[in-house]
Amino acid sequence: MSIKIGILGYGNLSRGVESAILQNTDMELVAVFTRRSPENIKTKSGVPVFTVSELENYKDKIDVLVLGGGSATDLPTQTPEYVKYFNVVDSFDTHAKIPEHFENVNKAAKEAGKVGIISVGWDPGMFSLLRMISTSVLPEGKNYTFWGKGVSQGHSDAIRRIKGVKDARQYTIPVEEAVNRVRKGENPELSTRDKHVRECFVVVEEGTDKSAIESEIINMPNYFSDYNTTVHFISEEEMARDHKGLPHGGFVLRSGVTGFNKENKHIVEYSLKLDSNPEFTGSVIAAYARAAYRLSKEGVSGCKTVFDVAPAYLSPISDEELRRTML
Amino acid sequence: MSIKIGILGYGNLSRGVESAILQNTDMELVAVFTRRSPENIKTKSGVPVFTVSELENYKDKIDVLVLGGGSATDLPTQTPEYVKYFNVVDSFDTHAKIPEHFENVNKAAKEAGKVGIISVGWDPGMFSLLRMISTSVLPEGKNYTFWGKGVSQGHSDAIRRIKGVKDARQYTIPVEEAVNRVRKGENPELSTRDKHVRECFVVVEEGTDKSAIESEIINMPNYFSDYNTTVHFISEEEMARDHKGLPHGGFVLRSGVTGFNKENKHIVEYSLKLDSNPEFTGSVIAAYARAAYRLSKEGVSGCKTVFDVAPAYLSPISDEELRRTML
Repeated sequence: MSIKIGILGYGNLSRGVESAILQNTDMELVAVFTRRSPENIKTKSGVPVFTVSELENYKDKIDVLVLGGGSATDLPTQTPEYVKYFNVVDSFDTHAKIPEHFENVNKAAKEAGKVGIISVGWDPGMFSLLRMISTSVLPEGKNYTFWGKGVSQGHSDAIRRIKGVKDARQYTIPVEEAVNRVRKGENPELSTRDKHVRECFVVVEEGTDKSAIESEIINMPNYFSDYNTTVHFISEEEMARDHKGLPHGGFVLRSGVTGFNKENKHIVEYSLKLDSNPEFTGSVIAAYARAAYRLSKEGVSGCKTVFDVAPAYLSPISDEELRRTML
Repeated sequence: MSIKIGILGYGNLSRGVESAILQNTDMELVAVFTRRSPENIKTKSGVPVFTVSELENYKDKIDVLVLGGGSATDLPTQTPEYVKYFNVVDSFDTHAKIPEHFENVNKAAKEAGKVGIISVGWDPGMFSLLRMISTSVLPEGKNYTFWGKGVSQGHSDAIRRIKGVKDARQYTIPVEEAVNRVRKGENPELSTRDKHVRECFVVVEEGTDKSAIESEIINMPNYFSDYNTTVHFISEEEMARDHKGLPHGGFVLRSGVTGFNKENKHIVEYSLKLDSNPEFTGSVIAAYARAAYRLSKEGVSGCKTVFDVAPAYLSPISDEELRRTML
């Protein structure tokens, strides 16, 4: 009997979840639910699309509902709401608001006897797991997180909001020298500017003052002013040809010491090189949807994060087989 | 109230656990127990050493007993025996015999109401965890494990058993070209010889036929015959000066694809660079000793592996704080 999944929303991330479910033979995508007009959406896998109000009829037909919405406005209300009726998984990624989100989801999930796993993906998600485990193993040390090379959607959107900009793609790139200093165990103090550079590809409307736009990007507070930023103006054709993917990735490093005199250095590094950020994130979500289903079957309820889920719950392989083949 | 730890044995690994406990302020090393004469052992941290028969008097004074013995002869009997009286952690690393060891420990642990966490360290251990999680996230792909550069104690011992050899140190070295092919997502088929080379540093007795020894090493079945092996003859002084450490490390990579047409590649890489193999292994064991203690407090019993332990149990930091600072 397969695990029945529903997805709320049908953006990039939801399609990533959809394609991930096709790779997991113990799962089945039942339907996609949308706040838009269902008749305008055709899913890649051919599963039906329903309006969100239909969800109430699926309480007994879906084991886990994946919430594909955004962290700014969708998930803060959706996750606590839908965990009243379904086991849910979300990818809430506003790090500063995770404690509040956790409390809201936990309260609703406990009351309903459901499981809600929040902040699933790679950061938060896999990167968090690695930071946490490495810190537990090497209590004396420093953590470093580098992102990229990859497309930052938030930064791309920020550029698109500038008057005269038709399209934009922003790549976050880790500074290799900084990464290598960490890898060597130098434990450097690194400023924001030391760790990443930002490279922007921008299509502007004809007749626009490019140098004014370049200056507006480079000096944009929060997004760019703390970084070394380069701006390239390109044509719409070049944008379509060279920048259609959503690659991403990054590194989590822990540099620690052990020994009676702290004489031995250790470097733990976890890195991701992802051709498709939403598809990898969707793949992580699919594995945690399996965990949500199993935890719920065992009578567990409440809000969980990647820290709370024993890794074996992620795998379709039996415990015996895991020990025999992967330990 | 700190977690009270005992250690059985006082070899390299046990000293690694001892130094790790000093870095974990929520833990306290109560005593070391030995099958040798306790009066001949002085611990680095000054904790007392008792003969192993004293252990029965420590049933209520130790929360977790770490078993520092070897996988060949010690642990197969020690872990099922001592889990009758203590929560235990071992580093059993004979991969092929893990299922049998698990069953033995599980039966004894369930009967006694204790927790036994087996095969803790980095391989098995952290590497297993990464293989398993990455495989769950990317079901379609290949796993690669490379070891080194590092000292293989088993291979060093094998050389030392050759007549005329006074001392030896064997380094396992991953073939960089092979690692890079995997990193590029080529998914190569790699033979044993393709993945690692073996470099040996050997001190021989005066008047020994070096070329005969070199040939005996290079052609030794199981240990060397399937590898490209180089042998360097060095003096005792060089051995003491250049090869006294026990560094190790390696890489676990998963190369997978996602997408409706499997068009997107993803590379997940976990790497360790360890100045001291036993101290890092001891540090992993200390974190899992914390988990054993907590699981036991919650009423859990039986045999566990790294797959079965939710990561939060490894950390001394509260769940709230973990979510706030590391998620």
